[in-house]
Amino acid sequence: MVTPRGRTFASDNWAGVHPNVMAAITAANGDHAPSYGDDPVTEEAIRHLRRHFGQDAEVLLAFNGTGANVIGLQALLRPFEAVLCAETAHINVDECGAPERFLGSKLVAVATPDGKLTPELAEAAAAGTGDEHHVQPKVVSITQSTEVGTCYSVQEVVALAEWAHARGLWLHLDGARLSNACASLGAGLGAFGSEAGVDMLSFGGTKNGAMGAEAVVSYLPADTAGLRYIRKQSMQLASKMRFIAAQFTALLADDLWLTNAGHANSMARRLSNGVVGVPGVTLAYPVEANGVFAALPPVVTRALQDEYPFYVWDEATGVVRLMASFDTTEGDVDAFVEVLAEVMGELGGNAHG
Amino acid sequence: MVTPRGRTFASDNWAGVHPNVMAAITAANGDHAPSYGDDPVTEEAIRHLRRHFGQDAEVLLAFNGTGANVIGLQALLRPFEAVLCAETAHINVDECGAPERFLGSKLVAVATPDGKLTPELAEAAAAGTGDEHHVQPKVVSITQSTEVGTCYSVQEVVALAEWAHARGLWLHLDGARLSNACASLGAGLGAFGSEAGVDMLSFGGTKNGAMGAEAVVSYLPADTAGLRYIRKQSMQLASKMRFIAAQFTALLADDLWLTNAGHANSMARRLSNGVVGVPGVTLAYPVEANGVFAALPPVVTRALQDEYPFYVWDEATGVVRLMASFDTTEGDVDAFVEVLAEVMGELGGNAHG
Amino acid sequence: MVTPRGRTFASDNWAGVHPNVMAAITAANGDHAPSYGDDPVTEEAIRHLRRHFGQDAEVLLAFNGTGANVIGLQALLRPFEAVLCAETAHINVDECGAPERFLGSKLVAVATPDGKLTPELAEAAAAGTGDEHHVQPKVVSITQSTEVGTCYSVQEVVALAEWAHARGLWLHLDGARLSNACASLGAGLGAFGSEAGVDMLSFGGTKNGAMGAEAVVSYLPADTAGLRYIRKQSMQLASKMRFIAAQFTALLADDLWLTNAGHANSMARRLSNGVVGVPGVTLAYPVEANGVFAALPPVVTRALQDEYPFYVWDEATGVVRLMASFDTTEGDVDAFVEVLAEVMGELGGNAHG
Amino acid sequence: MVTPRGRTFASDNWAGVHPNVMAAITAANGDHAPSYGDDPVTEEAIRHLRRHFGQDAEVLLAFNGTGANVIGLQALLRPFEAVLCAETAHINVDECGAPERFLGSKLVAVATPDGKLTPELAEAAAAGTGDEHHVQPKVVSITQSTEVGTCYSVQEVVALAEWAHARGLWLHLDGARLSNACASLGAGLGAFGSEAGVDMLSFGGTKNGAMGAEAVVSYLPADTAGLRYIRKQSMQLASKMRFIAAQFTALLADDLWLTNAGHANSMARRLSNGVVGVPGVTLAYPVEANGVFAALPPVVTRALQDEYPFYVWDEATGVVRLMASFDTTEGDVDAFVEVLAEVMGELGGNAHG
Repeated sequence: MVTPRGRTFASDNWAGVHPNVMAAITAANGDHAPSYGDDPVTEEAIRHLRRHFGQDAEVLLAFNGTGANVIGLQALLRPFEAVLCAETAHINVDECGAPERFLGSKLVAVATPDGKLTPELAEAAAAGTGDEHHVQPKVVSITQSTEVGTCYSVQEVVALAEWAHARGLWLHLDGARLSNACASLGAGLGAFGSEAGVDMLSFGGTKNGAMGAEAVVSYLPADTAGLRYIRKQSMQLASKMRFIAAQFTALLADDLWLTNAGHANSMARRLSNGVVGVPGVTLAYPVEANGVFAALPPVVTRALQDEYPFYVWDEATGVVRLMASFDTTEGDVDAFVEVLAEVMGELGGNAHG
Repeated sequence: MVTPRGRTFASDNWAGVHPNVMAAITAANGDHAPSYGDDPVTEEAIRHLRRHFGQDAEVLLAFNGTGANVIGLQALLRPFEAVLCAETAHINVDECGAPERFLGSKLVAVATPDGKLTPELAEAAAAGTGDEHHVQPKVVSITQSTEVGTCYSVQEVVALAEWAHARGLWLHLDGARLSNACASLGAGLGAFGSEAGVDMLSFGGTKNGAMGAEAVVSYLPADTAGLRYIRKQSMQLASKMRFIAAQFTALLADDLWLTNAGHANSMARRLSNGVVGVPGVTLAYPVEANGVFAALPPVVTRALQDEYPFYVWDEATGVVRLMASFDTTEGDVDAFVEVLAEVMGELGGNAHG
Repeated sequence: MVTPRGRTFASDNWAGVHPNVMAAITAANGDHAPSYGDDPVTEEAIRHLRRHFGQDAEVLLAFNGTGANVIGLQALLRPFEAVLCAETAHINVDECGAPERFLGSKLVAVATPDGKLTPELAEAAAAGTGDEHHVQPKVVSITQSTEVGTCYSVQEVVALAEWAHARGLWLHLDGARLSNACASLGAGLGAFGSEAGVDMLSFGGTKNGAMGAEAVVSYLPADTAGLRYIRKQSMQLASKMRFIAAQFTALLADDLWLTNAGHANSMARRLSNGVVGVPGVTLAYPVEANGVFAALPPVVTRALQDEYPFYVWDEATGVVRLMASFDTTEGDVDAFVEVLAEVMGELGGNAHG
Repeated sequence: MVTPRGRTFASDNWAGVHPNVMAAITAANGDHAPSYGDDPVTEEAIRHLRRHFGQDAEVLLAFNGTGANVIGLQALLRPFEAVLCAETAHINVDECGAPERFLGSKLVAVATPDGKLTPELAEAAAAGTGDEHHVQPKVVSITQSTEVGTCYSVQEVVALAEWAHARGLWLHLDGARLSNACASLGAGLGAFGSEAGVDMLSFGGTKNGAMGAEAVVSYLPADTAGLRYIRKQSMQLASKMRFIAAQFTALLADDLWLTNAGHANSMARRLSNGVVGVPGVTLAYPVEANGVFAALPPVVTRALQDEYPFYVWDEATGVVRLMASFDTTEGDVDAFVEVLAEVMGELGGNAHG
């Protein structure tokens, strides 16, 4: 077990819960209320989510991001159909095979320069259509913001949706960090819903100041999608739902989602500016949300990790991942950059690892 | 959506969160902490759980009871192997087919008089062993306290474990309401762990004053069971785990689990005494935990449900389920009994439904 | 390994291949032909199958009955949906859990007096519709002729189809022995297809003189059902398909299916007449196809099995299963009855087993 | 539907059945025999297979190659564990996702220069071991001969087995064309069984003159592997097993397997020599078994396919696949080469496709 020194850049899920969210959870603890979401607190959260994602959206709450992704994808494809996604996609590398296990489907992973699919990349990966020996592409799944801290523009998502729909595929969006993307792009959350041609999305609260709150937002007809049954069968139905719901209301009622995400993004930019100012450090991807991916000499990485836990993103290239969160301070950033500069100065010149 | 009138007997998961549990959740919200359970708060909860269930137990926290059951069962059997359980088992009727879906296995459901399996009942259901056309019985799964409010004695569990082990089967225990059983029997939680021959169990906090906290307790060798991977793949790994863990610490640190469960049981007994005092009302099962199952004329049930939501357990017999919870008061019980007596008096004599 | 004494009554799949079928297989072995069914021999078999089952039917060939059932059912339901079937159904007891494994769905098994579902029995089993905690009934699956040798009349199937469709369910028919039912009822094969409201069926050749040939017959729109992909993913796509196809052509071209099934039925009737003539032997079910189910004292069963292998259907009641096949002779029947009478005479009076 | 002109090079499964195999099938059609493999014909086939693969091998017969692969792999890993395989592997691209569907596991596909894994390539793909967010590598699966017509030497397989076992992984071998590899290398079939460290393999008869006959050969302890149940649940258990078994006996009794495979290999070499003699045609892979992979201008491919159906292996590079089979003649080869030369002469110079 690592003993962290306060706020590090290990992950945005190392942060705790925003005080407003905690207050909302506490306030939801009144008297008895119907379980499984049939209560006024959940009704209110759904109302807020629909205000953002559209009145036509079906919204369900879930425990975690992997759960939200798997629930949504289940409604979109059958086991002989396949999901096209970036090689770096969370569903491809960080969910311990839950999608293959529970969809029964193959993920067709596509190499990308920046974590982003394009119609051209998707087209190349969609071979085998109509051949019974091959899985049949049915869903394009993208992550916004991506796992490498980049963002799709609205136009890029629209282009993918048009390509997908013309081909008879659905567009799924993993929005575990959708708030960060929207804050970065100056877009509303709904800009990446049906407006952009997205058919199903996961919207994450947990990495943005919630305790554990994710939503599935579906633009499929509610009576045929079967999402309520899929959620229950997928072990993602909370009995005391109101305590998840209250978190979304806290995030959405007064734009706390935007404040939190904007702050995290801003801290990532500060961090990015700091680390590129250190001689010998380069960025692996543009910093467009709350993640900074920097190439460090392995010897430097190892020395830093004694004090600052963070993840090595790519052993081969030495790229490490640094995540800012809603509660990261300028002091946290500046302290890290200072330490990085010191360690690079001492060890960075002898960077053979 | 039902608008409940304060504390009803609809379910023990209509209750909120015990103040001590909420305080522990709030207290866990310090600064950053490692995610996915690699933090001191989770370490402390595991310590408390092992104190009760044994130092040899592997303990993992999960979101909900269905998840805990499916995780544990996955470690015990392969898809061509089967689970023997009571027809009334939660895994059989209330998990929307999650066990079949995620185990790939058949549940062999056994009719019981009181929700309890016996070696004799299990033996009769274990036919087909060695025949490749049949699923192969591998796990006996019991619920303690049962879904109909009865309890297995320690001796009854030991007898089932002996039968199972002699036959090469594992014994799994769904302990969503294990606290209620232990409070009722005057037994410690560990009495239904490896001491009794149980190989794997789910231990529930949610129905006993927690917000959403379940544990998988395994007596299999940790290095071969693969439970950590199973939990993640089963979408039950919380990133901000400390907020689940804190709930268990609150329940276990000063025997709040026992106080809460004992109180709920006591209210169920009071309720039971009250309802059997109403002419024409009979109990369907002995009241040994926090549930009361009473046969009511359907016309009475319908009239009562306007004011008091509760579940009809069996349409054919008119049996309804009334659950007491940690915060049920004597006033709640007495008010319900009074209303029941009134409605029975008015409508109970003309009980054709 | 049992060493059988020529033609016993163990199973209709202990018989070999009818000479006409073998001749057709040999004749199909001309030169190269496209694989996976894209060949003229397969085309001809499909033509014959459509002649019987209707031009609107989609027809696919498969290896075995379990495969055909699982393929067809996959097209009809999603994992949170359930199949209602008789407790005795092959899918429920004799497929080693393949349906649960590959559908991900629960089978809701219904006790029946004679292996046959009725709308009333199905209705009682279809509880929980609309409740997200319960699996959702979506398919009624019946077997024709049943596993206990009885037959549904056309009217009985129509009544089930009407009930199912009114409830939004599909009707699936396992026709591993459909030929025997049709021969018994004087009905054409198509009488149990879409004419009767059946949405999907398995049609078996193997038990009726083929080597290994089963068909999936679907009345779903071919372009949405996805059956070709389901068959391949379910490992049931033969590369040298023509050798399966030729078997169906042999069976269907000149009504060999009817001759074979009619003969087997007739031998079962002769057998049935013979065994009920033996004092102390009673039939468990009416003999309406090619199976005879008779209650024998266990001691008699054991003595007979030394010479005549057959299956004990129900240990508790002593009912054994005797199956006639396309090549059973009158001599085979009479010899068995003679032996049975002898053994019953010697041991049947002291029938404690 | 394509109308082929006699023997093309479309696939080795376009060939029919070798006369000796057909004779054995016919001969197996004596009288009744126990079903599901409990008969003398199957016993004999198992004896032959064990003679080649070792007395310690457990052998089961299956319908097709996809089935044999999925059965074997199921015994080797759990759903959170992963299979490392070449990107070109049949299990990865040609089984319509059956492995993901029925294993529940991820396939980690590795790019290779020649269809062959090496310990170095496998090591690079085995990242994430011990991290619960990642699938856990558990099986290395190789194909012998490979899908691109190359062969692993015995030493190469041994090296992979040593790497795998040192890492706690199993080695699985897809031997749909193992006969061709052995004929090419002058090795016995058993050289790629436990001798080489292989833990589980599929051995194919279908592409080598059988009608439809594949075997699963396992070196796991038979009593724990559960293969018989896995086969049945995977819908791969034939009732009239003797007709599959007879095919193996025909292939193995007098080394027909070797004659057939050697002949196909020899025709592939002749074809390879012919096509490389055509100006402008190059080989994509060394010809080490019965497949020839040649790069052709797309316009030539299209012109040829009118007369000679064959598969385009890679649209991007214009590589096509030409397969020789047990009954390919020198005349077939020379006729094709002649046509190829003509078409190349006419169209090959203007090779823009």
